[in-house]
Amino acid sequence: MSVSADDLQELQAQLAERSITRRPTVPALEEQLFQPIPCLDHGFVRVVDYMGDDAAVVQAARVSYGKGTRSANDDRGLIRYLLRHRHTTPLEMCELKLHVKLPIFVARQWIRHRTANVNEHSARYSIMDREFYLPRPEDLARQSANNKQGRGETLDAETAEHVLRLLRRDHEQSYDTYEKLIDDAGLARELARMNLSVGFYTQWYWKVDLHNLLHFLALRIDPHAQYEIRVYGEAIANVVKAWVPHCWEAFQDYRLDAFTLSGPMLAVVRRLLAGEDVGAANSGLSKREWTEMMGVLRPGDTR
Amino acid sequence: MSVSADDLQELQAQLAERSITRRPTVPALEEQLFQPIPCLDHGFVRVVDYMGDDAAVVQAARVSYGKGTRSANDDRGLIRYLLRHRHTTPLEMCELKLHVKLPIFVARQWIRHRTANVNEHSARYSIMDREFYLPRPEDLARQSANNKQGRGETLDAETAEHVLRLLRRDHEQSYDTYEKLIDDAGLARELARMNLSVGFYTQWYWKVDLHNLLHFLALRIDPHAQYEIRVYGEAIANVVKAWVPHCWEAFQDYRLDAFTLSGPMLAVVRRLLAGEDVGAANSGLSKREWTEMMGVLRPGDTR
Amino acid sequence: MSVSADDLQELQAQLAERSITRRPTVPALEEQLFQPIPCLDHGFVRVVDYMGDDAAVVQAARVSYGKGTRSANDDRGLIRYLLRHRHTTPLEMCELKLHVKLPIFVARQWIRHRTANVNEHSARYSIMDREFYLPRPEDLARQSANNKQGRGETLDAETAEHVLRLLRRDHEQSYDTYEKLIDDAGLARELARMNLSVGFYTQWYWKVDLHNLLHFLALRIDPHAQYEIRVYGEAIANVVKAWVPHCWEAFQDYRLDAFTLSGPMLAVVRRLLAGEDVGAANSGLSKREWTEMMGVLRPGDTR
Amino acid sequence: MSVSADDLQELQAQLAERSITRRPTVPALEEQLFQPIPCLDHGFVRVVDYMGDDAAVVQAARVSYGKGTRSANDDRGLIRYLLRHRHTTPLEMCELKLHVKLPIFVARQWIRHRTANVNEHSARYSIMDREFYLPRPEDLARQSANNKQGRGETLDAETAEHVLRLLRRDHEQSYDTYEKLIDDAGLARELARMNLSVGFYTQWYWKVDLHNLLHFLALRIDPHAQYEIRVYGEAIANVVKAWVPHCWEAFQDYRLDAFTLSGPMLAVVRRLLAGEDVGAANSGLSKREWTEMMGVLRPGDTR
Repeated sequence: MSVSADDLQELQAQLAERSITRRPTVPALEEQLFQPIPCLDHGFVRVVDYMGDDAAVVQAARVSYGKGTRSANDDRGLIRYLLRHRHTTPLEMCELKLHVKLPIFVARQWIRHRTANVNEHSARYSIMDREFYLPRPEDLARQSANNKQGRGETLDAETAEHVLRLLRRDHEQSYDTYEKLIDDAGLARELARMNLSVGFYTQWYWKVDLHNLLHFLALRIDPHAQYEIRVYGEAIANVVKAWVPHCWEAFQDYRLDAFTLSGPMLAVVRRLLAGEDVGAANSGLSKREWTEMMGVLRPGDTR
Repeated sequence: MSVSADDLQELQAQLAERSITRRPTVPALEEQLFQPIPCLDHGFVRVVDYMGDDAAVVQAARVSYGKGTRSANDDRGLIRYLLRHRHTTPLEMCELKLHVKLPIFVARQWIRHRTANVNEHSARYSIMDREFYLPRPEDLARQSANNKQGRGETLDAETAEHVLRLLRRDHEQSYDTYEKLIDDAGLARELARMNLSVGFYTQWYWKVDLHNLLHFLALRIDPHAQYEIRVYGEAIANVVKAWVPHCWEAFQDYRLDAFTLSGPMLAVVRRLLAGEDVGAANSGLSKREWTEMMGVLRPGDTR
Repeated sequence: MSVSADDLQELQAQLAERSITRRPTVPALEEQLFQPIPCLDHGFVRVVDYMGDDAAVVQAARVSYGKGTRSANDDRGLIRYLLRHRHTTPLEMCELKLHVKLPIFVARQWIRHRTANVNEHSARYSIMDREFYLPRPEDLARQSANNKQGRGETLDAETAEHVLRLLRRDHEQSYDTYEKLIDDAGLARELARMNLSVGFYTQWYWKVDLHNLLHFLALRIDPHAQYEIRVYGEAIANVVKAWVPHCWEAFQDYRLDAFTLSGPMLAVVRRLLAGEDVGAANSGLSKREWTEMMGVLRPGDTR
Repeated sequence: MSVSADDLQELQAQLAERSITRRPTVPALEEQLFQPIPCLDHGFVRVVDYMGDDAAVVQAARVSYGKGTRSANDDRGLIRYLLRHRHTTPLEMCELKLHVKLPIFVARQWIRHRTANVNEHSARYSIMDREFYLPRPEDLARQSANNKQGRGETLDAETAEHVLRLLRRDHEQSYDTYEKLIDDAGLARELARMNLSVGFYTQWYWKVDLHNLLHFLALRIDPHAQYEIRVYGEAIANVVKAWVPHCWEAFQDYRLDAFTLSGPMLAVVRRLLAGEDVGAANSGLSKREWTEMMGVLRPGDTR
């Protein structure tokens, strides 16, 4: 992560400021405010503002005049109830604002989450920096053999080195050209940027409510998500843990660690619990679904 | 506005609390936090939380590392530019959370604004209070003769009194019945509520970003909006003025006080400015559009 | 359900029309077009228009130039895969438009689904009809003893009759007053409507994409939904079955008939499958969650 | 625009199909269905499906049982009224589905319109084609001197040729590398794509309602929009004209050809109409706003 001297000074100014407020305040998150959390080689996530806390979820669920909170235990129980039964509107009463620096191809996955507010750095208006993503050698992987949109084993060291050399060469060249187009040819920025790859970094402010943020995280910290966006997802997950610990705990139990049994799967589990000998063949499930389910229900069992 | 002793105690507790925060804070809004602003006979609006300020709009527009603000004058100018050219995404970076008590028929207009978060008091879960809206005599008006969805002149005192007597009688009776259905017949709350009119008060938490809030206000403080929702709109408008004064000023100039000339209207104005004698007949506009435009361009002129 | 002579004539005209189109067309849904499906005592749902079919989901998922469909079996498999893994965006490529007549209190639950388009009959503009919902005696139930927002046992015949008498009396009287306010006092319609209860019928056009429609149905045909909205949900579910049979089948298996095991529940199921003797006490689950899970996994077992 | 033989066959199949429907059908749009409208050097827009027509807007505005349309003149008048007063919800009752092939940097502007449904070709899943955008020489322009996000004069022929040579060289090389990464190194597709620039073409299905489509067009066929997205905007504008001619006419008059006078501008126009001699200096407007307004009100006048 590279932060310019100017940015560092801005950051110091933000960190130095203190105000008195009547608003719900979360000390554990205040400590993290404004500080960039490094992601990938040049990116970061930093919390710029937040609204609400665990108690704000409870308050909205109860539509109460005051805080609406009772004992800490009651509040935790209510939040668990809300998450278990997917009563998600009270979670929308909390809001998080992030400043993110990320490769364009990550931004393109991210922006698919439509229920959020975003202001992105404009390459029509400003000149892009010479900053692009180069994976670490250990993150360079072969196309997966059995998953059309995933990675398989890591490349051997020699191939990895070769790949990185090619990536670096093309990125440096395309940025050299970009500079020439702007400086020498005087080409409009909105046209010159065409020559830059989706590996270059962009920046945006992104603001989202807690319900939609948790949905984003459920998809983006999933092992099937592309590694490069997962890195951001995990950085944000740690922020959420500090911000709304009760919501996070419930989210973990009822969503991240959960497994949904389809109707036909449920029938199989009932037969298994009744002591019946059920295998892939007489389960009524497709081979794929059988493997998926048994991988979760009997993780060690490789029959 | 009626606040119970319990609610008053909750309110005192909220008002007493103070925290230290690094977040952008608006002293003028802090003063108003949690305090109910009376609306109609039993309703209120109160600010429960907020995120951002004028500077947050500038920061997002510039996607800057720090606050992004320069001189106060530059910031004001940028905000005016954004509003003038309807670059509204930076306004989405501010968020307001309100607790509102309002008649059901007002809630039904309000909820049409979909880009907001809402948690409403549930009449399936809780028993409704005996609180319904009765207009002041001066707010009772006849059906407008020329506007199918508006009010005309005020009712005479005697008719007004008669109307209020009928409204009160029916509302009291329907609530008496509601109580009987619940207490005597043991009827489920979700069924008993059917007997209550849309004049009864409900409550909700409502959270919205500044862009969508200004759009709400543009529609709801318009003279064509129903008086009863306008009262809420105006209370919120005062909140916004205290919260983001630069945004409010620009909103007033470029939206509230603005008038949009259609293509054909623009042609007429050009002819007028060139000294041509244009009247309804040779304007090329419909009678209605001509009157609408001239009412704005030559307000005193009743030719 | 009451349809006026005028409306009947309009309906006949719609039913008589035929056009030739190149668009994807679903004969089974064409047959149902425009015909009102009765709901409750005076309400209805009728399909007014639709876009897409099962193949349109496949086409969008494959972003293919043509229809994108292969064998019927492949298409069914892809749709099942999409639903199983909650890849829901291709479902958004189908759209349904309904005309619905429904009590106001049902409309108030319905409108909470924000990702839809709606145009409602305006009681500011038009005079409401004397049409209100009266439950059938067998649908009048006591407040549930163990569910704060549900119904318990049915009222006895005598109480039911008493309840209906009260409901009818108050509704008739409030409508009589409404007429007097408008006709005799000349009161503006937007004010007079205040006297009408949430049991009166309103109407709207409602348009929604298939993904959001299925989400609506999952919540609204759930046994915990209020009976009166469930009636509409079930009517629409039958429409969806005729329209996109593959999507419906997958939705049924992976959502309606599914059960989500939380992380802690999953741990219990693993222990049970490993032959361990697990009961409520040593399960690590709350009493409530234990009961909920075992009710699903061992439905007959009342230990 | 390049269409493969396979795609052409798919297209022929779509064009050949005919069904009978009771749905509102627009012959002028049926003729255009499925046919790609070329945009830029390799892109296209084609209409894949539609729902509704001018009459559907009227029907929803009237919430009528039948079509709700009266005389053609009444319907046109109602649509003009709706557009003039920004009563936009009835426009949401029409829906358009497009298949679009477009450069990634155009897609990145386009996706900012969040109220739409989209399924994009996945470069994690599939291999990208060797297709990238090269502007025509006459579309290569210098950075604008007075607009930080716009183009100025066209490049001279020699510079243009030089620019195109550089762009082509880098794009060809980055695609060569992309192929090597995939074929020789076996690198996962989700990583290899990093090397491709935002000038490469992608494809998506995009579905949107008429209200949001008109908003998209208002922004994207504006002279300040980047030329490359304007090309798509204008292609779609022609589609809309054929589809809903009354809506388009009203949109043109009340939005495209309209000019909004701010409160302070309105004051100036009133003074001008009263015969007062108002200039930039005594107008009370900023220099910029004065120029903006007079450019519209007195287009020929360059005082």
